[in-house]
Amino acid sequence: MAKGNLYIVTAPSGAGKTTLVKALLAADPLIQLSVSFTTRAPREGEVNGRDYHFVERTEFERMINNGEFLEHAEVYGNYYGTSQTWINSVIESGSDILLEIDWQGAQQVRRLFREAIGIFVLPPSLDVLEQRLRGRGKDSDEVIARRMKVAREEMSHVDEADFVIVNEHIDEAVRDIIAVVRAERLRLVAQSARHTALISALKG
Amino acid sequence: MAKGNLYIVTAPSGAGKTTLVKALLAADPLIQLSVSFTTRAPREGEVNGRDYHFVERTEFERMINNGEFLEHAEVYGNYYGTSQTWINSVIESGSDILLEIDWQGAQQVRRLFREAIGIFVLPPSLDVLEQRLRGRGKDSDEVIARRMKVAREEMSHVDEADFVIVNEHIDEAVRDIIAVVRAERLRLVAQSARHTALISALKG
Repeated sequence: MAKGNLYIVTAPSGAGKTTLVKALLAADPLIQLSVSFTTRAPREGEVNGRDYHFVERTEFERMINNGEFLEHAEVYGNYYGTSQTWINSVIESGSDILLEIDWQGAQQVRRLFREAIGIFVLPPSLDVLEQRLRGRGKDSDEVIARRMKVAREEMSHVDEADFVIVNEHIDEAVRDIIAVVRAERLRLVAQSARHTALISALKG
Repeated sequence: MAKGNLYIVTAPSGAGKTTLVKALLAADPLIQLSVSFTTRAPREGEVNGRDYHFVERTEFERMINNGEFLEHAEVYGNYYGTSQTWINSVIESGSDILLEIDWQGAQQVRRLFREAIGIFVLPPSLDVLEQRLRGRGKDSDEVIARRMKVAREEMSHVDEADFVIVNEHIDEAVRDIIAVVRAERLRLVAQSARHTALISALKG
């Protein structure tokens, strides 16, 4: 059984990452979003194991002490975290996992998962990004300027990724991300694990 | 301008390489087959620069002496060869090139083009391969056995490739090879060269 791959998808706000990831998940049944652990209560309609892994505070703290988290944070009194143990078990089962995080989270994950594959999504230009950020509402120039600053900070880490997708036309960008995930499954190591009988017959 | 990639596609006879390559070339206008140089006369319908680069014997020998060939051979008194100079110029222009060669040619090319990307096409099993080789005509068991031996020799080099495509269903295998070529164009280095203005604006 071949192991799955771990993908880290990074992008500034406005690059179209959410749309892209949604389209990938819809097109490819062998990849799934990473599901975070949290101590907050489930909201109406949220399903345990799909939206979050809902756990008690004591359980979460036990996991912290065990070093089970790739990354975790406390926000408004609730814990949120990505479990390395859970990710490992999904990957071992042959599924790919996709993690949507910022450059800091990406660096953290890469330290622990050297084989993680980084995909950076960029807008076609800074002007287009600004238009997209403005298009979202009636925000002041100051707010837009702050968002652009955050976006530029994020984008300055583009060269830490393995693949770069420039999202000019969403259809093309969707094809791009689907191609990356499909192609990475065809790497020699993955295929050797998937087709053990065939490959060992060839080498025998 | 991004440089193109050089792909080496290797497969045993009967794996379906020709069909696969034809489908890729039809689907992707940015990749082209390597065109060999030859000293033999053009046949009816053959176009210079498309089917072969037709050159005089003296010219071919000058190219050999200049070390211009990645590989060359003399067959029935005619020279055939793959020009490194020509491949470099196509790659510099941003096009991808695909080279269909055997494992020995692949090793030779890889020594000179370290960045060449190797794709190995396998049949789903040795039994299926034998059926496919038998299916071609009314050949004797001896002939089939010889072909299988050559095929196994070729396949024993599968672990020299970067990507492995197992051609069980041709539609899936076609999608696989298209995905590999599309994904490799999205690598950081290639994208940085393609989107220089954008990337330098981000790093500035």
